[in-house]
Amino acid sequence: MSPRRPEVKERSVSGRTGRRPGQSTTRDEIVAAARESFAKRGYDGTSLRAVAASAGALVRRFFCSKEGLLVAALTVTLSPGERLAEVMSHDLDSLGEQIIGHVLSVWEKPASRDVLIGMIRSACTNARAARLLRDFFAGQVLARLASALDDDEALLRASLVGSQIVGLAFYRYVLKVEPLASASAETLRAIFGPILQRSLTGPIDLPKRKKSR
Amino acid sequence: MSPRRPEVKERSVSGRTGRRPGQSTTRDEIVAAARESFAKRGYDGTSLRAVAASAGALVRRFFCSKEGLLVAALTVTLSPGERLAEVMSHDLDSLGEQIIGHVLSVWEKPASRDVLIGMIRSACTNARAARLLRDFFAGQVLARLASALDDDEALLRASLVGSQIVGLAFYRYVLKVEPLASASAETLRAIFGPILQRSLTGPIDLPKRKKSR
Repeated sequence: MSPRRPEVKERSVSGRTGRRPGQSTTRDEIVAAARESFAKRGYDGTSLRAVAASAGALVRRFFCSKEGLLVAALTVTLSPGERLAEVMSHDLDSLGEQIIGHVLSVWEKPASRDVLIGMIRSACTNARAARLLRDFFAGQVLARLASALDDDEALLRASLVGSQIVGLAFYRYVLKVEPLASASAETLRAIFGPILQRSLTGPIDLPKRKKSR
Repeated sequence: MSPRRPEVKERSVSGRTGRRPGQSTTRDEIVAAARESFAKRGYDGTSLRAVAASAGALVRRFFCSKEGLLVAALTVTLSPGERLAEVMSHDLDSLGEQIIGHVLSVWEKPASRDVLIGMIRSACTNARAARLLRDFFAGQVLARLASALDDDEALLRASLVGSQIVGLAFYRYVLKVEPLASASAETLRAIFGPILQRSLTGPIDLPKRKKSR
């Protein structure tokens, strides 16, 4: 799909006719509108057309597809490149604590949390969204985390930690199981820090015949 | 809603007109049909009417509501009463290993696995299903597990373990993140056994001001 102007009707719906001063601002607005839509309506309920209308911007100029928009929304929400580099700049011995601290700092912002819950819901109901999320986590998050571990089973350890984070999100925000649902951030840090650390650097004794897969 | 006969039309669709010999067999058939429907179509896509038609039985005589059916399907799938008693009859020191072994024995049966994935999907999209699942896990599973732990933070530990199990299911079956997605049961037992054990009986150092909630 080649970049093109949106239809006149969409521009008039948005109430805006002029061009935005800079492309990056426009792009940011689109991603903000997309984040909101994915969080509120999920992957199936989000359309490029609706995002274009609410952002009042040239969506197709920047994003060819809904998939592209979802990845952009995730990237803005999690900034894995910068944030993970910062998390992993600390001692390997404190990585568990750093990771749960980082995760909670993202979840404590309602806007980011809503995007992530929207992503979890989307993955539950749409196989394409599940695949996108998997590729995003595997490529942008777990591979980076694994690279910090000097270990034969680095990727297995990274995905173990990933599963624990998703499980916490699911219990706390989707199922709302107590006492995890209303535990304070300090309590969660105190519980998950050592468990994640054990998962990343603790002993691991895999069965001999087939290692890890 | 009082117990009543199904409409003639539903009976003729099912091709069965006579009574079942025993109530318990009929009930089992209904629950089996309900499990299949929840697994395939989720909570929103399941209707009492369709389950009645496919089970060819007196659904309303046993279950007043879809909620009742869902809880019955979960109970049959997980048998928390008997299975957890067996799991917890072992030493506290091997509880982590017992739990992951039990969880995998359920997931290795495609029929049970499909029901559980159906439940996770339902909870993602329907707040009522999420509440039912939460009440089921909290009341039938976590409370029993917590009662086995002689610990002030027993319920927090039990829900921590629950979140890790759900996270593994989500990573393995919904997102399909490697290497967890295709890891063997032996590998999963080797990884999760010690982590769950650490979560159940390892040291825990909560912040002083507010304990656990």
